[in-house]
Amino acid sequence: MTTLDEKFRALEADNAPGQEVRQDSVDLNTIMRGGTFSGVPVDFSHGDVDAFPPIPGTSSAWKHGFEKGGQQAYTEYRGAASIRESMADRLGTFTGTPVSADRELIITPGTQGALFLALGASVTTGTKVAVVEPDYFANRKLVKFFGGEIIPIPLHYQGPPSENSLDLNRLEAAFKSGTEVLVFSTPNNPTGLVYSSSSITSISALAAAYGVTVIVDQLYSRMLFSGEVYTHLRACDIQPENLITIMGPSKTESLSGLRLGTAFGTSKLIDRMERLQAIVSLRAAGYNQAALETWFQEPSGWMEKRISDHEAIRDGLLNIFRSADLFTATPQAGSYLFPQLPLLDIEPETFVRLLRHQAGVTVTPGSEFGPTSSDSIRLNFSQEHVVALAAAERIVNMIEVYRS
Amino acid sequence: MTTLDEKFRALEADNAPGQEVRQDSVDLNTIMRGGTFSGVPVDFSHGDVDAFPPIPGTSSAWKHGFEKGGQQAYTEYRGAASIRESMADRLGTFTGTPVSADRELIITPGTQGALFLALGASVTTGTKVAVVEPDYFANRKLVKFFGGEIIPIPLHYQGPPSENSLDLNRLEAAFKSGTEVLVFSTPNNPTGLVYSSSSITSISALAAAYGVTVIVDQLYSRMLFSGEVYTHLRACDIQPENLITIMGPSKTESLSGLRLGTAFGTSKLIDRMERLQAIVSLRAAGYNQAALETWFQEPSGWMEKRISDHEAIRDGLLNIFRSADLFTATPQAGSYLFPQLPLLDIEPETFVRLLRHQAGVTVTPGSEFGPTSSDSIRLNFSQEHVVALAAAERIVNMIEVYRS
Repeated sequence: MTTLDEKFRALEADNAPGQEVRQDSVDLNTIMRGGTFSGVPVDFSHGDVDAFPPIPGTSSAWKHGFEKGGQQAYTEYRGAASIRESMADRLGTFTGTPVSADRELIITPGTQGALFLALGASVTTGTKVAVVEPDYFANRKLVKFFGGEIIPIPLHYQGPPSENSLDLNRLEAAFKSGTEVLVFSTPNNPTGLVYSSSSITSISALAAAYGVTVIVDQLYSRMLFSGEVYTHLRACDIQPENLITIMGPSKTESLSGLRLGTAFGTSKLIDRMERLQAIVSLRAAGYNQAALETWFQEPSGWMEKRISDHEAIRDGLLNIFRSADLFTATPQAGSYLFPQLPLLDIEPETFVRLLRHQAGVTVTPGSEFGPTSSDSIRLNFSQEHVVALAAAERIVNMIEVYRS
Repeated sequence: MTTLDEKFRALEADNAPGQEVRQDSVDLNTIMRGGTFSGVPVDFSHGDVDAFPPIPGTSSAWKHGFEKGGQQAYTEYRGAASIRESMADRLGTFTGTPVSADRELIITPGTQGALFLALGASVTTGTKVAVVEPDYFANRKLVKFFGGEIIPIPLHYQGPPSENSLDLNRLEAAFKSGTEVLVFSTPNNPTGLVYSSSSITSISALAAAYGVTVIVDQLYSRMLFSGEVYTHLRACDIQPENLITIMGPSKTESLSGLRLGTAFGTSKLIDRMERLQAIVSLRAAGYNQAALETWFQEPSGWMEKRISDHEAIRDGLLNIFRSADLFTATPQAGSYLFPQLPLLDIEPETFVRLLRHQAGVTVTPGSEFGPTSSDSIRLNFSQEHVVALAAAERIVNMIEVYRS
C-alpha cells in the first residue's frame, strides 16, 4: 500500500511552473561557465498577462458580480444557473454540439480544477488510465494521486503535421487490456500539436468501441493559427458513452488570476464532479464567475488580433531556434513551444536552473511532461514580442556554452 | 474495494446547504397539512451577505490586486509571499503563537479548500480518523473520500457549558487503538459550542502523547459572544507534533464569494498541502488573495458591532425556540443554532423540505452533521434580524402542525 510519504513524493512540484522561487538554492556558481547574459528577465513558465491583458471589461464584470451580493456569492456548486445558461449556448456553438446548462456543464476553479474533478470522478484505486507522453504534467500526477495506473501512449509530434498523432495502435492495445480512461490535450501541451480530424475520429470510435471514458483538455483550442483546422471530439458521429471536454479562459484570454474553468459532457460524470467540488472548495469563487460573461463575447476583432500577435511571436521564435539547429515542432495552436536541446555537458534540469540563474530566462523542463521528453524545454510564448525573442537568443547562447 | 459509484454515493450532496434547488421535486403537496405560512423567505442554510456585507474596502482591495497584473495573477501555489507575510503576523497574534509566513502558512480556496488539503495530506486508505459527532458535514465525507475510516467521537453539548466537550474517554480509547488523525471544529458547527480551555488542553496533550495529527477548524472563532473565552490549541504548552489550524474570512467577515481560506501549522503538512493544491486548482484566485489585506484589519469598531448584532439575533431566536420548548444549546460563538425537533408524524428530512415548500424557510437537516443528530435542524442566523425572527416563528408553527 502506498504511504502518504510516497503519495506526496509523486506530487513533487518544485519544477512546476511558478514554483521555481521555492527551489533549494544549490550553489549554481560553482558549475556555471562564463558570465551572465544580460537582458530583460522573461518567465516562459506561464503567459505574461501584462503583455496580453485580460478580456476588456473583466474588472467591471467582476464588480457587477460583487454588487449583486448574496446570490452571486452563493451559487450552486456547479456554478450560477444564469451564467451556465448563456455559456452553454456559446460552448455548444463553438464545439459543434449542444450543451445542456442544467445537466451537462460545471464551472470549476480553473481548468486545473476541471481536470482534478474529471479524473477524480473516473479514476480510483487500480483504474488503468491512458496518458499521452508528452502531455500536461498534472495528468500523470492526478492519476497517481487517485490510485490509478498510468498506461503511457507515445505522441508522435516530430513528423509532418498530417502524420502526427498519438500512437493509435498502442492506444487500442491499451483499451483491449483493460484501460478504462483516456486523458489528453489538444492542442497538445507542451508541443502545440493539434490532433487531426482523422486522429480525433479514430480516438472517439475506439473509445466508443471499448467503453473507455475520455477526458479531453481543449484549453488552448481557440488560439488556432492560420491554415490550421480544429476538430472537437464531442462533435464526432461515433462517440464514447462517457466524454468530458475541458475549456477555460485562463490562457488565450488571460483570466488565470480569476481561477475559472469549465467542463461539459456526460451528465453522470458532471454530477460526480459537482459532488467532489462540494468537498474540495464548494464552487469557483462566486463573484469571479460573473467575469465569464465576457468569455466568447470579446469585442469584435479582439481575438483575431490576439491570435495574429501570438503567431508572429511563434514565427520569430521558430526562426531563432531552427537557425541554431534545435528541433522544434511548429505549434498549430496555443502558445507553447517545445524545442529540443542537443547533448549538453550538464543534465537538462541543471541547464534549466542555470538558464534562470545566468540568463534570466525561466522555462519548464521537459521531464515534467513525461519520461520521454527530458531533453526538451517548454516555453509559453505569450510574452512581450521583443523581449521574448531576445530571451530566445540567450537560450541559444547558453546552449552553445554548455554543448557537449 | 470501493467502486466509484459507492465512493460518490457517500458524497451525496442534495441536502447540502445551497443545493436544495437541485432536489428532486417530489410532490410535497400530497403530504402537506394545512396551508402555507406567508412571510419573507429566509435561507438559513448559509449567512446572508446582503444583511451582513463584506469587510469595507473588499472590492477596492480586489481591484488593486487586479491592477497589479501578472505578479498577482500568478502567485506561488501557497499564495503571494507579501500577503502571507503580513497575514502570518496577524494570525500569530490572534492565536497566541508565531506563524512562519514562509514555511507554516498556505492560502487556500476557502476554508473548505483548507480542510480538503489538510485531510488529503494526512489521510489515505485505511487511516483511522477521529470525527466528532455532530460536526461539520464535510469532515465525514472527506475522510471517506480519501479512504479513511471514521472513528466517531460523541460531542456532549446539551449540558452546562463548563461540562460540554467531546468525550475525552472515547477519544483516548480511539487514540490507543490506532487512530492517527483528529479533525474537529471549535466553535463547533452546528451547535456553536466553544471548547473550554481544559478540553483543548486535554485534547492537545492526548494527541501529543499518542502521536496523533490534529486538524482544528477555527472558522468562526472571531465571532465570540460576550462573556465567552476562546482557547487556541496551537497556544497550548503541550502540543501534537502535527497540528494544522484552519481559519478564513468567509463567515464572520462575509467574504465567501471570494473563496479564501488559510491553514497554518506544521511545515511538513503545509508542504504536502501545497503539492496537493498544485493538482487541485493551483492556487486561491490570485486577484482575490489581495482582499486578504482587509482581514484582521477591519475598521475600528466594525467587528464589535458585527458580534453584538449577531448576539442580539441569537438571543431573539433562543427565546422563540425555548418558549416553544425546543431544546436549543446556547451558541457561544459563530452564527449557528441547532434546535432539536420534538417527535413528528413525518421524518425530519421531510419536515425540512416541507418547511421550505410551505413556509419559505430553508434550514439544514441535522442528519448532515452525523447519525446521532437527525432530530435537529441547523440555522445560520447571520440574517436580517426581523425576518430571521419571523421565520423562526414559522418554524415553531410548522412544528405544531406536524407534531406527533
